[in-house]
Amino acid sequence: MASQQTSRVERLLERVAAFMDENVYPAEALYKEQVKEYGWTKAPPVIEELKAKAQAQGLWNLFLPDSERGYGLSNRDYAPLCELMGQSPIAPEAFNCSAPDTGNMEVLERYGTDEQKREWLEPLLAGTIRSAFAMTEPDVASSDATNIRTRIERHGNGYRVHGRKWFISGAGDPRCRILIVMGKTDPEADRHSQQSMILVPMDTPGVRVVRPMRVFGNDHAPHGHMEVDFDNVQVPASNLLLGEGRGFEIAQGRLGPGRIHHCMRLIGLSERCLAIMCRRVKERVAFGRPLASRDTIRADIANSRIEIDMARHLVLHAADMMDKVGNREARSEISAIKVVAPNLCQRVADRAIQAHGAMGISQDTILADAWMYARTVRFADGPDEVHRAAISRLELSKHET
Amino acid sequence: MASQQTSRVERLLERVAAFMDENVYPAEALYKEQVKEYGWTKAPPVIEELKAKAQAQGLWNLFLPDSERGYGLSNRDYAPLCELMGQSPIAPEAFNCSAPDTGNMEVLERYGTDEQKREWLEPLLAGTIRSAFAMTEPDVASSDATNIRTRIERHGNGYRVHGRKWFISGAGDPRCRILIVMGKTDPEADRHSQQSMILVPMDTPGVRVVRPMRVFGNDHAPHGHMEVDFDNVQVPASNLLLGEGRGFEIAQGRLGPGRIHHCMRLIGLSERCLAIMCRRVKERVAFGRPLASRDTIRADIANSRIEIDMARHLVLHAADMMDKVGNREARSEISAIKVVAPNLCQRVADRAIQAHGAMGISQDTILADAWMYARTVRFADGPDEVHRAAISRLELSKHET
Amino acid sequence: MASQQTSRVERLLERVAAFMDENVYPAEALYKEQVKEYGWTKAPPVIEELKAKAQAQGLWNLFLPDSERGYGLSNRDYAPLCELMGQSPIAPEAFNCSAPDTGNMEVLERYGTDEQKREWLEPLLAGTIRSAFAMTEPDVASSDATNIRTRIERHGNGYRVHGRKWFISGAGDPRCRILIVMGKTDPEADRHSQQSMILVPMDTPGVRVVRPMRVFGNDHAPHGHMEVDFDNVQVPASNLLLGEGRGFEIAQGRLGPGRIHHCMRLIGLSERCLAIMCRRVKERVAFGRPLASRDTIRADIANSRIEIDMARHLVLHAADMMDKVGNREARSEISAIKVVAPNLCQRVADRAIQAHGAMGISQDTILADAWMYARTVRFADGPDEVHRAAISRLELSKHET
Amino acid sequence: MASQQTSRVERLLERVAAFMDENVYPAEALYKEQVKEYGWTKAPPVIEELKAKAQAQGLWNLFLPDSERGYGLSNRDYAPLCELMGQSPIAPEAFNCSAPDTGNMEVLERYGTDEQKREWLEPLLAGTIRSAFAMTEPDVASSDATNIRTRIERHGNGYRVHGRKWFISGAGDPRCRILIVMGKTDPEADRHSQQSMILVPMDTPGVRVVRPMRVFGNDHAPHGHMEVDFDNVQVPASNLLLGEGRGFEIAQGRLGPGRIHHCMRLIGLSERCLAIMCRRVKERVAFGRPLASRDTIRADIANSRIEIDMARHLVLHAADMMDKVGNREARSEISAIKVVAPNLCQRVADRAIQAHGAMGISQDTILADAWMYARTVRFADGPDEVHRAAISRLELSKHET
Repeated sequence: MASQQTSRVERLLERVAAFMDENVYPAEALYKEQVKEYGWTKAPPVIEELKAKAQAQGLWNLFLPDSERGYGLSNRDYAPLCELMGQSPIAPEAFNCSAPDTGNMEVLERYGTDEQKREWLEPLLAGTIRSAFAMTEPDVASSDATNIRTRIERHGNGYRVHGRKWFISGAGDPRCRILIVMGKTDPEADRHSQQSMILVPMDTPGVRVVRPMRVFGNDHAPHGHMEVDFDNVQVPASNLLLGEGRGFEIAQGRLGPGRIHHCMRLIGLSERCLAIMCRRVKERVAFGRPLASRDTIRADIANSRIEIDMARHLVLHAADMMDKVGNREARSEISAIKVVAPNLCQRVADRAIQAHGAMGISQDTILADAWMYARTVRFADGPDEVHRAAISRLELSKHET
Repeated sequence: MASQQTSRVERLLERVAAFMDENVYPAEALYKEQVKEYGWTKAPPVIEELKAKAQAQGLWNLFLPDSERGYGLSNRDYAPLCELMGQSPIAPEAFNCSAPDTGNMEVLERYGTDEQKREWLEPLLAGTIRSAFAMTEPDVASSDATNIRTRIERHGNGYRVHGRKWFISGAGDPRCRILIVMGKTDPEADRHSQQSMILVPMDTPGVRVVRPMRVFGNDHAPHGHMEVDFDNVQVPASNLLLGEGRGFEIAQGRLGPGRIHHCMRLIGLSERCLAIMCRRVKERVAFGRPLASRDTIRADIANSRIEIDMARHLVLHAADMMDKVGNREARSEISAIKVVAPNLCQRVADRAIQAHGAMGISQDTILADAWMYARTVRFADGPDEVHRAAISRLELSKHET
Repeated sequence: MASQQTSRVERLLERVAAFMDENVYPAEALYKEQVKEYGWTKAPPVIEELKAKAQAQGLWNLFLPDSERGYGLSNRDYAPLCELMGQSPIAPEAFNCSAPDTGNMEVLERYGTDEQKREWLEPLLAGTIRSAFAMTEPDVASSDATNIRTRIERHGNGYRVHGRKWFISGAGDPRCRILIVMGKTDPEADRHSQQSMILVPMDTPGVRVVRPMRVFGNDHAPHGHMEVDFDNVQVPASNLLLGEGRGFEIAQGRLGPGRIHHCMRLIGLSERCLAIMCRRVKERVAFGRPLASRDTIRADIANSRIEIDMARHLVLHAADMMDKVGNREARSEISAIKVVAPNLCQRVADRAIQAHGAMGISQDTILADAWMYARTVRFADGPDEVHRAAISRLELSKHET
Repeated sequence: MASQQTSRVERLLERVAAFMDENVYPAEALYKEQVKEYGWTKAPPVIEELKAKAQAQGLWNLFLPDSERGYGLSNRDYAPLCELMGQSPIAPEAFNCSAPDTGNMEVLERYGTDEQKREWLEPLLAGTIRSAFAMTEPDVASSDATNIRTRIERHGNGYRVHGRKWFISGAGDPRCRILIVMGKTDPEADRHSQQSMILVPMDTPGVRVVRPMRVFGNDHAPHGHMEVDFDNVQVPASNLLLGEGRGFEIAQGRLGPGRIHHCMRLIGLSERCLAIMCRRVKERVAFGRPLASRDTIRADIANSRIEIDMARHLVLHAADMMDKVGNREARSEISAIKVVAPNLCQRVADRAIQAHGAMGISQDTILADAWMYARTVRFADGPDEVHRAAISRLELSKHET
């Protein structure tokens, strides 16, 4: 059985790789042009064409484990596929495997009612709408969920959502129809029972996109990382997920897979940066010698190879743990890769940039984007510091006296 | 005498500091808005207002040493002033002390004819026009000047310039009137006599701005880092600087001061990032404690303080050497700070960003801009690798047997 | 089959762990005392007692793969056992699995004649004698084997060995009876056919131990890293291993396993340093709080945990590659761990030392020894630089055009 | 005046440099041999010869600022002299400027009675006896002085000292006659008034040297870092320094100069390591090229040069601050160099070691000793962590709201 699954995954990997070569990489430049052309008004048509092709080939929704709606892949199975998709910024969406939708689909799959699934999960799985996850707030340290100020209050037959969120990724997309909002239903409850999650359709009165937050100056249109205001937004009680006070529990369930997907993609992106660097230094001549003949460049390449391989082994191990003992028991492993992968990719991208000189920070390679994405993930879904604290707590507890 | 000069510089420092507090910092937000409004079409009006005020107060052209047109400050005198200006991205231009104009003015002052000075240096010193320096090329490693492909050929009564440049900072500015272009007059001459420099007015037929090169996605309008094509551009022979084959010599003369100014500004920018970080961590609470109470944050702050102070001492020492033994003899010291300062600022900005979380990479602080500027200078005016090579060569030569 | 082997290895691991707890750790202090008492004159009696116990329990010679004389363990099987032994400096010898004997036994097993095996391999496997490997020379960079100057010349019926070696580990041990010496039989042959290896009994006339080389001041008696002079040492022709000109080939065959064993032990030693650190910081109070409550200490612990786990995965992967595709094909993986493991252990030991203050560098913990061992392996069996060069060469070759 | 002093210091520097070249460096090997010969029984005769020569030339006690007994040098004057002495492990003692005697002489000079000065300061200044400073204790974190357990209790006409100290540097020297012991006279007093310091002659009954503490295995005979037991040691009341409860105050006064001297010496030692590395890599050939042609080696050399220069500027600045505003006001600067210098020297020594391979850790260069000394100072006189905490506290206080 194990080997049947192994060869199934290997075939999938070949098919995804072929799809990347034939369709994804060649479309990157056009995607960028269309973004420039359409801005916030519509998604680049080329991505819809890619999606149609991938769906037609059955390369679709590969991410969802333990579900009839998914592909039957474990986290360990999915890891190399996700890594491969990570090599192109536009690939994950082409396969309907992109954040934040994957996390939101997981939430709906695990915790949604049949009604919620019909209304939101199905179109998301079909790739006809997109979604966002509204947790981070502007005025508080959101790495500590107890700081959240947004209120979700019982009001009439439903709930009233009031507060301000920012860096809500994907909320700028014209296709984005639904938000999963985290807020407090009971600020007096104990620490981990104050929060709830609720579904808020984008077109609900009182939901207002204030501005795009920029990432090193970039607005990432049409996706965007928006500041969103919720001004007494009224939604039906049936929009609540799982129950009052269970927001923290859902967040934990959501974040494990979300984090590991980021890490898998970052491994792939690191591989691409390293490949770009290798090709560059073989061609580039300075002071009479190709850069590839320089020991410092070679040390950078060797260190990148070593560090990528180590990070990959750690990610695969964490994925395996998640499959075998569950996300909760694997939390130290998940925290470990969450520290490792973004720092790795930032470092590999930085080396590749330096080997390129000015071109490395320009629009003519993906290196600058890779660097910025990696830098961002160093605090997204929990900053390095919080993850290190979690790991050390578990490590020290092994030596209880 | 020494102490008279010292107290003169101290008074200047106070006046520049006061001007920064009263005029520059408060204008930063408006500058950003006006950039958004006017884009490439015109410079933000607020900068012209700041320039007028600074000029009225006599805080103008502080950078030019050894010249009647300058302020009579040595490099060592100018260092703390330049550092202070570096604390705000808009300050250097307000005092007419911004790159690349300062370097270009130095070139005209040192190597220009009276005619060239009258036509270009005077309006630059008056702040009524701007300029750019066209050296870097897209297809070759420009850190090795012998790679340059642009041709400057005798043609009729003048010279014909033909080639392609990119990352020409300031060439996007509607006020930019003049380019100093580096190219080869004699590719067969010996290594350091192939290049010449020539003045090319922006409006000369054949000069075409191809596109803005982006820096981590940003176009830096209205300044810009442009790709510029020179298609058989004809200029009079009198536009040549100093003489055929002397381009390398001019470049060396220009780069020393240019590099140290970058470094001084980066020290100032590092100070500002550290101050922003300190204020943030005192206010920000996570997991029940202000971030300022965390040992890791405190270690970051202490290391930043230590590293900034070390870098400053090194910059002051290099400035002093330039004054005393000249740019050429001080080249190891200049290379040293060129390696140190950008890496320092990148590191300090990175720590400050991490302490801010998402806000740190957003448009709401200057941290992201600081980081990107620092990262860019790690290869601008010679990558770290080239400077380290120069330093080690001198170090090893001390042990000749 | 796979799972039968897996559970066999698991049982072995439990037995080795139990032996460590019951016999090895409790003997460490006595070992140190006996070393002080006997110096170079005889091996500490306690190690012979441990060997007798381990042999009686069948925990003996676990290292030798692919041999009837061995335990039937693959490199992958042996890895966790070797890691465990690495936790104590005296454990490897207790299980007859210590360097340089393991490497020498592998050489004799793979390349020795029946006669050579009877005379030297059998007593080595029985633990009744010890051996050394004489490659490194004082006057040349031995990382480049073509630099070797020792001559092995045909003379009469045999060979005459002439030259100087140093850092010959184990050659100080009174039980050391045999040296495998690398030298040149034909300096005119092509690069990799100049060297041969030959067996030289310690008591051969002309073999003289000049002095112990010190490692950070320590002589490591009775083992020692000796400078050894070979003054026209005559041995029979039958002492040559494999054939003239095949020394480089044997060295390659020997170094793969030797390197991975070092790495496995270093992982184990890192684990022990981390455990010592964790226990220390929970007990140690400064400025009113246990060190374990400090974020910087916690970051050190988290980073150590992460880095150890990554290194272990990489070592296990390399061991697996050696089993599946052979040492030659796995050379990039072996080089990778050879860079990673010593640096890891040095770093983890350094953090543990810092958390201990003065005690950390004293004789009262194993931290100082761990640090020095790790530092030494950063150039033993090929310095980091050579391994990085090998990795980058392979990486760049993937992008041949 | 300033320039008269400057030229006086310059002449001194030349004389010290000449003395080093003519007398000190040539004696290093003999010193090592004599240490091996005499062990703990007597100081190497060669050091007494060096002392006699230096004293005869008036190169003696250069360290003591603000005292008639000293040389009239400020801290800033002394810095380059101390740096130069730091280049050889045996130089400081040759000039009677070695720790811990310099610190102890400063204590006696600042806080001693005439009687105490006559009995102990004069022979110390004459170099006829040596001394030690007993603060660190085995069972507590001594970086926090309130942890100290040794008791100094009124008893009869005098005081009774009871406790255990370790790492008492110099207490192994047969010439060591006097200890300055820190202990608590009143454990109930407020935090900084509990401690006192008292003079305890080595031959007082109850003083027992328990064992030498080893530093990475080395006992540093005849100097030594001893564990010393004080078993109800009775001394006259007149042996108390300054007064009960003033031990913390004296310690602060002693540690400032002590720390900066360590740092100056470490700069000098770093210079020597770099010089050794440069000479080595020019001679050493591997894979057909001298190591000096390798970019990684060159980067190491360049970084070492840069880092040494930065550290030196910081040390000079701190010395200047101590002269101008006093040790207390300069404490952030002192803490800064205390973090910088040992880490610098450890790093430079590590690079030099790596460029040497096995020779680098052997007895054949001073690199291993340099590395160990630097590593030790990373926690001696306050670990890095405590100094960083002090710096960050001052930095954060600049932003009080």
